[in-house]
Amino acid sequence: MKKLINAAENVVPEFLGGFVRAHGDLVRLSSSGKALLRAGAPGPKVALISGGGSGHEPLHGGYVGYGMLDGACPGEVFTSPTPDQICEAAREASGGRGVLFLVKNYTGDVLNFELAAELLAAEGLDVAQVVMDDDVAVTNSAFTAGRRGVGGTVLAEKIAGALAEQGGSLADVRWACEDVKRHVRSMGMALTSCTVPAVGKPTFDLPEDAMEFGVGIHGERGRQRLPLECAAEIVARMASAVVDDLPFLPGDEVGVLLNGMGGTPLMELYLVYRELGAFLDHRGIQIGRQLVGNYITSLDMQGFSLTLLKLDARRKALWDFPVHTPALRWGR
Amino acid sequence: MKKLINAAENVVPEFLGGFVRAHGDLVRLSSSGKALLRAGAPGPKVALISGGGSGHEPLHGGYVGYGMLDGACPGEVFTSPTPDQICEAAREASGGRGVLFLVKNYTGDVLNFELAAELLAAEGLDVAQVVMDDDVAVTNSAFTAGRRGVGGTVLAEKIAGALAEQGGSLADVRWACEDVKRHVRSMGMALTSCTVPAVGKPTFDLPEDAMEFGVGIHGERGRQRLPLECAAEIVARMASAVVDDLPFLPGDEVGVLLNGMGGTPLMELYLVYRELGAFLDHRGIQIGRQLVGNYITSLDMQGFSLTLLKLDARRKALWDFPVHTPALRWGR
Repeated sequence: MKKLINAAENVVPEFLGGFVRAHGDLVRLSSSGKALLRAGAPGPKVALISGGGSGHEPLHGGYVGYGMLDGACPGEVFTSPTPDQICEAAREASGGRGVLFLVKNYTGDVLNFELAAELLAAEGLDVAQVVMDDDVAVTNSAFTAGRRGVGGTVLAEKIAGALAEQGGSLADVRWACEDVKRHVRSMGMALTSCTVPAVGKPTFDLPEDAMEFGVGIHGERGRQRLPLECAAEIVARMASAVVDDLPFLPGDEVGVLLNGMGGTPLMELYLVYRELGAFLDHRGIQIGRQLVGNYITSLDMQGFSLTLLKLDARRKALWDFPVHTPALRWGR
Repeated sequence: MKKLINAAENVVPEFLGGFVRAHGDLVRLSSSGKALLRAGAPGPKVALISGGGSGHEPLHGGYVGYGMLDGACPGEVFTSPTPDQICEAAREASGGRGVLFLVKNYTGDVLNFELAAELLAAEGLDVAQVVMDDDVAVTNSAFTAGRRGVGGTVLAEKIAGALAEQGGSLADVRWACEDVKRHVRSMGMALTSCTVPAVGKPTFDLPEDAMEFGVGIHGERGRQRLPLECAAEIVARMASAVVDDLPFLPGDEVGVLLNGMGGTPLMELYLVYRELGAFLDHRGIQIGRQLVGNYITSLDMQGFSLTLLKLDARRKALWDFPVHTPALRWGR
């Protein structure tokens, strides 16, 4: 295993130390040092909090800041955050207008956010949750009952975060998340495995002539292991699966998140984006907004995921709302 | 070789097609389709143009836009742009106040930009050049007479671009580039090789227990091949080489570019940043500005490079000036 680390057991706190040093104008550590919060005192707004295993950076810490998250709970690598950690983030991020947990659908995450919500409710905090499950690849998987939560989470954080910033109530912000959830679908593929530092070897084996179609963000098995294809064929396969699931229809306008898994050259991602544009043109689907880059990664995995969100005027306006976080910034 | 491509010979035009589709609000193709220009007609300003082999994205195309470059000339992967391509970019980006070429020191790049400058001068265009050579690793190398140009180029593009946007003359903007050149130093390291699509196999072999200290952005040999160390040791080795070269002295304020080589997880880069902060604290050097992420890559190489720029009030103000490009954005 080749990693830029000191000791595997210290990777997360050391990464967090560097992260808050680099972005101290935007983020700070919670009192125990285990959660990331916006710099400064909480404002009088709904606190939007997400979290999950580390190793998917910039998710979620990279989205803490104006117009997106108020707090992020990074677990150990590919490991759920603890209920204590989630409670602390909620208490310290709360501005008195309620807390919304945005949870990716993995069994441990759902359980721990649920437990935290119960504990916080008992303390009198107004807490709601939305569980994202946008990955069309498989119905159930190694760590999931139901579909997995992936790239749609980034878009839910953006859109719900914008509404929370505008003063939306807890019910409004929760509704905006559920609205994204209803209109977003994703799928991923891998050329190579990732390697978890504490494990020290690749999570799965993938022969030199094969790809994992429908891979999960922890390297979970997807729909099929297939012979490696050219970019146009891969895009047709991936985009068909995503488009046909909602389904996205001719005349629809979509927001695209074309996401690198962490080890994919940006040159290749843009080449894939060209193929995706041609595919959607052919289907009569219009790209209204787009993000191309590394937004929800799987350590050093090579591959990409595709997320499509159906746009309407409301979702588009919230997409466009200013944002200022370590990983996403415009309009400020 | 595992790549998200169609055919190796079409990688660059297909990547460019996706790039301008994703960022059509900011960039457009030149008339032949071989260079990237700012969207819209050239303004009455010095045109700042850079270029070099593809495979280092987001460099240089990702820095075309307000406050940075007016044009970028992407060659084939790891291959210099042609004089024709450079001439076309200069002619079509020129706003009548002169053209500055920002060139990384590689023999082919220097030769072709020089030839283009002569051709353009014969046409009556006012052209100047600055050759960046900030890599302290080696004196000469496979493709270089003298030191190689690496991450310092990104900072020169930012700072000279800001001055050009403010209406600086060709002499002023050239001076700002040379001022950065005098005050910036860099060094890179690799854990793994990169793989050029047209070659189909890794550029170099690096055993599982070794790292290349001082690697070039095309995988050129560095100073030494060393046993793999922990992050703190690697940072001490890298940062010492950079700090001692200028030298950066106690009391100096620096701008840091901590750059991933393309295949490095962001989690590890932030962990490295923490070590770098501790190193610079110990040396009495203050971090005034920082960028942590993938800014000048080497395809899928794992590793990082470190660039330090000595700051003064003038360079800091130009660093802070608004920028709006595909890869760097703030203040607008």
